[in-house]
Amino acid sequence: MPNITDYIIDTSYIKQVIENLKNIYNINGYIIDSEGNVVKDIVLMPDDLPTDNLFKGFYQFEFIEDIGWLMCASPDEIAISNADWFIKSSITAINLLLQRKLKIQQMSKEIIELSEQINFLFNLAKKVTGVKKLHEFCEISLTDIAKKIEADSGFIIVKDSQNNEDIVIPYNLSADEVINIKNQEMFNLALKKKEAILSKLDNGISAIVSPINIKDGIIGFMAFFRKQDKRFFTAYEKKLVSIIDNSITATIETLRLYDSLKELYLNTVKALAAAIDAKDPYTHGHSFRVAKYSMAIAKKMGFEKDTIADIEIAGYMHDIGKIDILDPILNKSGKLTDKEYEEIQKYPHITYKILEPIKLPDNIVLPASQHHEKINGTGYPYGLTAEEMHEFAKIIAVADVFDALTSDRIYRPAMTIEKALTIIVDGINKEFDGKVVAALIEVIRDVDSINELENIRRDLKFSDIQILNKFLEAITEKLMLPNL
Amino acid sequence: MPNITDYIIDTSYIKQVIENLKNIYNINGYIIDSEGNVVKDIVLMPDDLPTDNLFKGFYQFEFIEDIGWLMCASPDEIAISNADWFIKSSITAINLLLQRKLKIQQMSKEIIELSEQINFLFNLAKKVTGVKKLHEFCEISLTDIAKKIEADSGFIIVKDSQNNEDIVIPYNLSADEVINIKNQEMFNLALKKKEAILSKLDNGISAIVSPINIKDGIIGFMAFFRKQDKRFFTAYEKKLVSIIDNSITATIETLRLYDSLKELYLNTVKALAAAIDAKDPYTHGHSFRVAKYSMAIAKKMGFEKDTIADIEIAGYMHDIGKIDILDPILNKSGKLTDKEYEEIQKYPHITYKILEPIKLPDNIVLPASQHHEKINGTGYPYGLTAEEMHEFAKIIAVADVFDALTSDRIYRPAMTIEKALTIIVDGINKEFDGKVVAALIEVIRDVDSINELENIRRDLKFSDIQILNKFLEAITEKLMLPNL
Repeated sequence: MPNITDYIIDTSYIKQVIENLKNIYNINGYIIDSEGNVVKDIVLMPDDLPTDNLFKGFYQFEFIEDIGWLMCASPDEIAISNADWFIKSSITAINLLLQRKLKIQQMSKEIIELSEQINFLFNLAKKVTGVKKLHEFCEISLTDIAKKIEADSGFIIVKDSQNNEDIVIPYNLSADEVINIKNQEMFNLALKKKEAILSKLDNGISAIVSPINIKDGIIGFMAFFRKQDKRFFTAYEKKLVSIIDNSITATIETLRLYDSLKELYLNTVKALAAAIDAKDPYTHGHSFRVAKYSMAIAKKMGFEKDTIADIEIAGYMHDIGKIDILDPILNKSGKLTDKEYEEIQKYPHITYKILEPIKLPDNIVLPASQHHEKINGTGYPYGLTAEEMHEFAKIIAVADVFDALTSDRIYRPAMTIEKALTIIVDGINKEFDGKVVAALIEVIRDVDSINELENIRRDLKFSDIQILNKFLEAITEKLMLPNL
Repeated sequence: MPNITDYIIDTSYIKQVIENLKNIYNINGYIIDSEGNVVKDIVLMPDDLPTDNLFKGFYQFEFIEDIGWLMCASPDEIAISNADWFIKSSITAINLLLQRKLKIQQMSKEIIELSEQINFLFNLAKKVTGVKKLHEFCEISLTDIAKKIEADSGFIIVKDSQNNEDIVIPYNLSADEVINIKNQEMFNLALKKKEAILSKLDNGISAIVSPINIKDGIIGFMAFFRKQDKRFFTAYEKKLVSIIDNSITATIETLRLYDSLKELYLNTVKALAAAIDAKDPYTHGHSFRVAKYSMAIAKKMGFEKDTIADIEIAGYMHDIGKIDILDPILNKSGKLTDKEYEEIQKYPHITYKILEPIKLPDNIVLPASQHHEKINGTGYPYGLTAEEMHEFAKIIAVADVFDALTSDRIYRPAMTIEKALTIIVDGINKEFDGKVVAALIEVIRDVDSINELENIRRDLKFSDIQILNKFLEAITEKLMLPNL
């Protein structure tokens, strides 16, 4: 309930009026609040309270109804009528002061709100600069907006720009809950109105839904919810969500495009790898598997996510130089002549020459072109040593040989995993890096990794999983010996 | 100069005070402004002006120095001293009212500024949503900010994320002017302070420089300038630029990444095309030239920029299916057997099978895989008719044959442009689309196009440009005949 004490901050003028009433007219002036109580901060003396045997006059403040009165009390019957002109003049001044105070309070609130909006946008913009993933960008934005408007949960849902599939980023909700909520009527309403709406879920929960609007149309929604026992969202909070939504839409849209282009890039590289593998029926799927094995090994070795994305591309591209090796050499079933062997050993350098002008990162170009190097310096085409080889080249080297050994070849059938690993373990410190080999064995032992590599597992030739597991245990123990 | 009339909007209270002075104390009250003039709007009667034979008292408004006075004048010597308590009380009220009015004015200004900032960000965000190019995004932003802060010129300069080269987007400046300005000291200062600064160019022009700050460091600057005869930029304008700069940095950064990835994609496709061309010494550079010819033809035919980017990629990829054709057939110098010919005719379909899973747009996949179709339906591998062929396939078909004819082959030397065009023109309405052939001839006749195709022109075999030009004129005339 509005009260005069909320608006009288500077009491100097009112005190002066009350003093003048006392000194000039022998009138005691009191400010009475909307509940009929004397405002004690403004009386002249602490114990100066009106008594009943006095003549009284009440002058209401014309500002907000029931905000309070100036009560004038005097033992002198005509004192108040003598002072009437002065009291009215003072009341006019007080009314104007109160009105301006109210205006100032309203404006202060508006300034705080506007400043908060700008600060929020400013801070969010700072926070998301450099974020390259749509998911991460949306997660940061969701969490910050939810905190700002005190929402308990929410989500962003946007259509993938390539496949038109929904990308769901939930905040304190499961993906199923999002889909369930997304089907409720208010989303159709927001779609129709093309602007943020305040609404309620079917179970009465307060909700804000804001469509994500690009030039071509609505590509998704941003939604926030507040628990049933809490107050409803306000129009101000809806407006705030709408402003933020609008401000981040450009970045959402760009990140969507960026994601699609990344996918396109990966698909292109995969398709070309598949085409190169298809030159030889015996290497069908080889680059794909080498990429997957390499990623799994790198993950086990603790490399970061971004780095693992690079090793994936290096895996797909590691045989790309074969494009320019003549098919008769590549597909020869008998033993290669020395000249042919020399020719074929050029191909990792051709890989380098193909990839180099693309300006791909070293993390891709070097591993792809160095995967036939050996850590003792006897590999080809450059004869690099362990120190000179790129870390990822050592990974691709192991993944490449493992896949080659466990696949059929024109001159021999596929080996069992046990046989292949035995050969690879024998190559530690000669051809292969022991840490990489250990990681490969861990990958094969690890059920989770194997599930990730599901497509590949089908190709693995092993008659008896138990036998394999015992073998893997034994080989792991052997790897732990200090001489390795 | 501040004046009481700027702050007294509501005159009711002051008028009441002046009335009371007259009625109760026989005093004429006048409001005197800071220049000593009576504020006529507030006098009681239009011709009521103070005369010299009166006793006077002056009460200054304690608010901003020299804002004005309340002058009290009376023929009665003691009237003013009698009214002194009332006058002082009224002056207190007026002072408070003026202060609150000032506060309200300041706050209004602040609200307007904040609202303008939010509106600006809101509108700019709306405008740039869907913009996929860094240049375009920066141009729109520059123009809008310059208008907002009344700058006459400016620029954005950002480092390319791949090559670290400067990307310059000028506004009302030449690229040289930007480089010259960019070397001035204030940019080092902004780099050091890591925030927007107000400064002057060496020639005294007012400038705002705001660094573009991402997590990894400063990647560029945004700068604005105002002509010498205009007022300097204000701290508020600097702050505004800084807020906008910060808000759009995330999008600038994402677009930089997107641009780099696009370049990477194009480079990858080019590199692979080059690798495929290199399988055969006679097709070296073929895909590159077909891409360029196709783009030039498409441009002449009036296709849009985005579309031309697609045809470029289709050009690079049109022979990608050759990966899976065995080299002995591809490089056979003698006549192919029927079986070999059948085999080689499969390759555009292999191109389709390689590109299809990449989910590239139809604008790329279809032209790449249909470029050996003929408009009369006698082409391979599908035997499509003119209606069934993709528009761009008709372009690549012409570009492909033109390049093949004007290049050396194992079984014949390169033909002259005249010979090649004669053959192609003969194929109109059988193999080739007349509009496409006409566009190719226009491209060759057009000096600008030829400059764009500079790399290619070197390869073109023609002994005498004049003879060629005459030939081109003649063939163009022939093409204009109604029977074609």
